[in-house]
Amino acid sequence: MRVLLPDLPEFRALSQPDEGGVPGVTLDHYDRAHVPDSPADGVVLWMTGPQTRERLLSTPGLKWVLTLTAGIDHVQGHLPDGVALFNASRLHDRAVAVHALSGLLAAARGLHTFRDAQGRAQWASPALPTDSRLGTLDGLNIVLWGYGHIGRNLEELLAPHGTHVRGIRSATPTDERDELLRAADWVILLLPSTPDTRGVVNADTLALLKPGAWLMNVGRGNLIVTDDLVQALQEHRLGGAFLDVTDPEPLPATHPLWQLPNVIITPHVASTTTDLVRRGAHLTRDFLIDLQQGHEPAGRVTAGRTY
Amino acid sequence: MRVLLPDLPEFRALSQPDEGGVPGVTLDHYDRAHVPDSPADGVVLWMTGPQTRERLLSTPGLKWVLTLTAGIDHVQGHLPDGVALFNASRLHDRAVAVHALSGLLAAARGLHTFRDAQGRAQWASPALPTDSRLGTLDGLNIVLWGYGHIGRNLEELLAPHGTHVRGIRSATPTDERDELLRAADWVILLLPSTPDTRGVVNADTLALLKPGAWLMNVGRGNLIVTDDLVQALQEHRLGGAFLDVTDPEPLPATHPLWQLPNVIITPHVASTTTDLVRRGAHLTRDFLIDLQQGHEPAGRVTAGRTY
Repeated sequence: MRVLLPDLPEFRALSQPDEGGVPGVTLDHYDRAHVPDSPADGVVLWMTGPQTRERLLSTPGLKWVLTLTAGIDHVQGHLPDGVALFNASRLHDRAVAVHALSGLLAAARGLHTFRDAQGRAQWASPALPTDSRLGTLDGLNIVLWGYGHIGRNLEELLAPHGTHVRGIRSATPTDERDELLRAADWVILLLPSTPDTRGVVNADTLALLKPGAWLMNVGRGNLIVTDDLVQALQEHRLGGAFLDVTDPEPLPATHPLWQLPNVIITPHVASTTTDLVRRGAHLTRDFLIDLQQGHEPAGRVTAGRTY
Repeated sequence: MRVLLPDLPEFRALSQPDEGGVPGVTLDHYDRAHVPDSPADGVVLWMTGPQTRERLLSTPGLKWVLTLTAGIDHVQGHLPDGVALFNASRLHDRAVAVHALSGLLAAARGLHTFRDAQGRAQWASPALPTDSRLGTLDGLNIVLWGYGHIGRNLEELLAPHGTHVRGIRSATPTDERDELLRAADWVILLLPSTPDTRGVVNADTLALLKPGAWLMNVGRGNLIVTDDLVQALQEHRLGGAFLDVTDPEPLPATHPLWQLPNVIITPHVASTTTDLVRRGAHLTRDFLIDLQQGHEPAGRVTAGRTY
């Protein structure tokens, strides 16, 4: 078996003849400057641009692709017939759930506005608690739009916070979905980007939200029709938005989202941790050992799967 | 029974002859401009400056004082002999614990640096996860210095985060305390300000912390010798600090703490929620009913109590 891996020290270590390595598998490495063009059985895709990705996916003899992302929208349409696709949601679930909770709490405690005040060296304590707009999460209705592994992880993190958590799945009927959206204090997008989910948050769905509700996107930028969101925010129909992903992404410096009050932007880092590459290499090693031993590895993406 | 209360609508409502009021108790109200000087049995102290407080504490006939704060340092030394003191920690525990968790997560997810980047309209995604300094709380040693109601509340909120939580009490022997400080990834100050606790975080205790450890203060500003903290931060011996209280407070615009990297400052709002005054009025009503019915109300502060 010959496999192409990212050219990172953590993946180079998989060639070591010790318990950290995968003996019997020939590993070769790619980066932006160099993509091997000899045949390979599999490719582990990570941190590539579109050009590198295209070249990797046209590797002769390709049988499988493991993308170390949770999303698969960057691969699915470009995959040659008969090539099996695996993803790695489990690598990201925990950090994304923690990132989402950090956003809920930052908004509840006003950390973004206090950070702005800190930049002006200003002790911005509210005159009266009643005017503070600060709270805990107790009693809030939190709707997780996309209720898979990340959603369940987040629900676990929220358990001690006194929130009411409800999930929307692809099987949730539209009227039930709309009822959940109407009652939500927070709507949290955890969806993958698929033809069915693109633009699900638009003028129509935003109009369902109650005044002051917050929206969070830690899924994919194109789940939201950005212009519709900007308008809802400019008209103060929403309380605010926490966006880790945007459309377009990266967000251009001139985009109005940067400056709107109560919009908190993080640059697509919800799943980022300092040990992510190491964990990705471990997952890859386990994956290769499964293949060697004739087991079906975890994470197979099947055609009908949405959320 | 005649009682002086803050002049806020929520406290005025306690005079209503319905289930929201306390019939049989004569309520009078004070604010900065007006402090009644006729005799009263009790004073409910809240959101007063030192001058108003001094006048209230010299009310003739005073038998008890209820301060609707958790801290009592602003009252204790000024209380006439024989006057009973009650505080209201339970009014604040939850929000302070939630605020502390928001700080832990903001630091872990880099929300403060991304907020600064947002102000510059800059999509500041790290080149490699390894360089991101982002993580979850999993595996972190979190030391709660002061382990009372807030500490237990925070421990509950932390339960799903995979942290190791340890508490330091006033009874904890110094060598054990120092061992906990040495192992800490985060030290969270939840102490009241007393002669025993002032300046407990100083050059000596800071020197015990491991490089990169973070300090949080949601207790009182003077628990920390500020100059020692500034020096430790400037010498990059700490990872950072999350400060809701400072010494001096409010922090003057010229103070170096405002501008140090990885210092996150909130303006003494850890216990603030929009419903705080309403909850304070409810607590006061229950307190007065207890007194009327001859029960000892909760929150009596006794002399030996520290943390």
